[in-house]
Amino acid sequence: MKSDHKMRLAAYYNPTGHHVASWRHPRAEADAPTNIKHYVDIARTAERAKFDLIFLADGNAMREANMEALCRSVQFVAHFEPLTLLSALAMVTEKIGLVATASTSWNAPYHIARKFASLDHISGGRAGWNIVTSQQDAEARNFSQEHAYEHADRYDRAREVVKIVLGLWDSWDDDAFVCNKDSGIYFDPTKVHILNHKSERYRVRGPLNVPRPLQGYPLLVQAGGSNDGRETAAQFAEATFSPHLNISDAKEYYDDVKRRMVKYGRDPEHMKILPGLSVIVRSTEKEANADFELLQSFIHPMVAREILSTMLGEIDLSGYSFDEPLPDLPDNDSGHYVSILAMARKENLTIRQLGMRVAGARGKNVIKGTPDQVVDYMEEWFLKGACDGFTIMPPYIPGALDDFCELVVPELQRRGLFRTEYEGRTLREHLGIPRPASQYASRRSRAAE
Amino acid sequence: MKSDHKMRLAAYYNPTGHHVASWRHPRAEADAPTNIKHYVDIARTAERAKFDLIFLADGNAMREANMEALCRSVQFVAHFEPLTLLSALAMVTEKIGLVATASTSWNAPYHIARKFASLDHISGGRAGWNIVTSQQDAEARNFSQEHAYEHADRYDRAREVVKIVLGLWDSWDDDAFVCNKDSGIYFDPTKVHILNHKSERYRVRGPLNVPRPLQGYPLLVQAGGSNDGRETAAQFAEATFSPHLNISDAKEYYDDVKRRMVKYGRDPEHMKILPGLSVIVRSTEKEANADFELLQSFIHPMVAREILSTMLGEIDLSGYSFDEPLPDLPDNDSGHYVSILAMARKENLTIRQLGMRVAGARGKNVIKGTPDQVVDYMEEWFLKGACDGFTIMPPYIPGALDDFCELVVPELQRRGLFRTEYEGRTLREHLGIPRPASQYASRRSRAAE
Repeated sequence: MKSDHKMRLAAYYNPTGHHVASWRHPRAEADAPTNIKHYVDIARTAERAKFDLIFLADGNAMREANMEALCRSVQFVAHFEPLTLLSALAMVTEKIGLVATASTSWNAPYHIARKFASLDHISGGRAGWNIVTSQQDAEARNFSQEHAYEHADRYDRAREVVKIVLGLWDSWDDDAFVCNKDSGIYFDPTKVHILNHKSERYRVRGPLNVPRPLQGYPLLVQAGGSNDGRETAAQFAEATFSPHLNISDAKEYYDDVKRRMVKYGRDPEHMKILPGLSVIVRSTEKEANADFELLQSFIHPMVAREILSTMLGEIDLSGYSFDEPLPDLPDNDSGHYVSILAMARKENLTIRQLGMRVAGARGKNVIKGTPDQVVDYMEEWFLKGACDGFTIMPPYIPGALDDFCELVVPELQRRGLFRTEYEGRTLREHLGIPRPASQYASRRSRAAE
Repeated sequence: MKSDHKMRLAAYYNPTGHHVASWRHPRAEADAPTNIKHYVDIARTAERAKFDLIFLADGNAMREANMEALCRSVQFVAHFEPLTLLSALAMVTEKIGLVATASTSWNAPYHIARKFASLDHISGGRAGWNIVTSQQDAEARNFSQEHAYEHADRYDRAREVVKIVLGLWDSWDDDAFVCNKDSGIYFDPTKVHILNHKSERYRVRGPLNVPRPLQGYPLLVQAGGSNDGRETAAQFAEATFSPHLNISDAKEYYDDVKRRMVKYGRDPEHMKILPGLSVIVRSTEKEANADFELLQSFIHPMVAREILSTMLGEIDLSGYSFDEPLPDLPDNDSGHYVSILAMARKENLTIRQLGMRVAGARGKNVIKGTPDQVVDYMEEWFLKGACDGFTIMPPYIPGALDDFCELVVPELQRRGLFRTEYEGRTLREHLGIPRPASQYASRRSRAAE
């Protein structure tokens, strides 16, 4: 192991925290979703702790659910649009990376390219784009369609949109704008490139009306464990956010995705795999467990059942008693489905028990314990090659974020596993991922060979 | 006249200034288009001077022009996306309004509603949306179409998009989010409204996933002197940016648009008409004239001819000598066309002379002189009922903006024509335009009558 081999840490911010009932915790900010002061505070907290980046999930619709469950929820109800928010946060932070989700189904490629390029300039090279394909029909219905695109179509579309966006980011060479007041030449006309992308789906002429991003391209981030998701990640992603619950699944994913990168001519070092981890850390195990139980006690059974239904693939459970086991369900090979059914059968759980079990973290990995226990766990995953770091999902915010920064980060630093100061200025520099050359620059250098 | 009758002032920011050669002026920031520090400075300058708002124009494409002219230009080449920029500026200002342009042709209504609602929350109620319809084919080509929509279609679409956006902003009643940690109720389910808009063009279900904007609706701004433009303004706009060159045209527009408001049941006081005015102010008339001539000397003849061509409606003048008069041109009743041809004939100008005359301010009103001369001019328009204030377009930035704030604003204040302190906190409060009730609130109160 190289001595400079350090974990990377992303801070994943659901507004009030990742736990489904987070907002009811005494140390959560209940009005977080549109409280800019809250976001300023938690962005600065993560920056003081030297996190690589802040990560904001997103959806283009209110979550679909029955109203009795929904009105008790904060997740994906109403909150800031993430790019607007990150642009504001760029002005109150100096180093931390700023990653926003934008859907390739519901955003024109020109807008994606423009907004992330603008954010990259505004933030001094700290922008990242989390590429999602959007599978919810609720989103489609806000954009004049009844249904989300089918799985394969979504991924084809995503790959095409990424290529267009990369092409638009290369519209201007890095040194195109000379701004010479004496000669009167504002830009060098040989250094602007017209993309002229044409397909069945998209015709995008270009050039982008923003100069090339400071990072060349904002960091490309992706999540998704399906075969298509892994392949898209291997082709494009520079950071991934993976959902595995144990070290062996995480390692399988890690090795598989890094192996797939090779056929795209990519260096496996140039992607950081950061599995999600929701951490409750307190000075004693007892306190950590009590805090978790407190959070769990805030979950309303309606909410638990609704989340369970969603995770099983929109199976309607409203006709069953909370205290019955799950009814017989058809076969389905999706990851959540299989693991939930296995858990239900193994422990003979009722709908209520199962709902409470899965609703809190919605299938994400949760660890609770003392600082040493948490760091031992993280260290094992990292040293055994199951990850390049973690996406930390505080179960409630700001309380559990503060705890992580005060109790876990110093121990990671003491063990030499995490930075004590930012290495550079841009998000790419923090992650050790090189600034990509323009596709036109590489064509020129090939032509000159 | 009421003693509290004050002008309203908007600061219209082309990145380096409004004059076509602004960027070459010694007191302009040549790299302004993506220099966030520049924007922070000029936003704060306008706020110190108590401007009502900052106004950012926009287009979704690089301007179309021949490359020899284009590479000498800064206008609409490459610059920050305005909403991303204003969100950043929201964090470094406290009172000034933040108005960004967004096209109803090339943005999904859901995105417009979301982003402006987010900006309104982030800025504490200071957002405004400048509604444009986008007539350039260059923009269409970045969104999978060959041509911009036809004039009437563009305006029909704009009116529909505005209605959808207003409906989405009303998705949540102002008091919908109760966030009661004890009861576990996050929002009151009777206070969320599903829009369910369905037409040939748009199906938008809602609700918006952002709470109702702090201002109810962000301020609606519009420009456009055509009949459709005036009608749309009368129906929706709360501020307009009009292009008239003399007081009688401005007064005709003012009276006409305010009269048209009545049939939509609107109070004429609830729209502020702010004609564009590009000001060069120096302590002596001689210095002001010299500064203007310096700016004019920076215009390259290619740029002048290209702007002239564009203003005449894309008429190709490249086959004519710079020193000939304009060729015979077909009839056309657009405003710029008629006035340019009249000027050319009256003064017998060559293409070069005419180009230099129109290129600088591109048809906008320019005044140069001493502080007293400038304030006399503004006062006359204001007191004679030709406007409610002005949209100040500094010909170069920051220099000419600084001059305006240091020389003109204090004289306006001395004469009691302009505020010395902000009256309120939100953009609507600055302008004296009431916060609109939700359309559902008015339905409820009608039902209760």
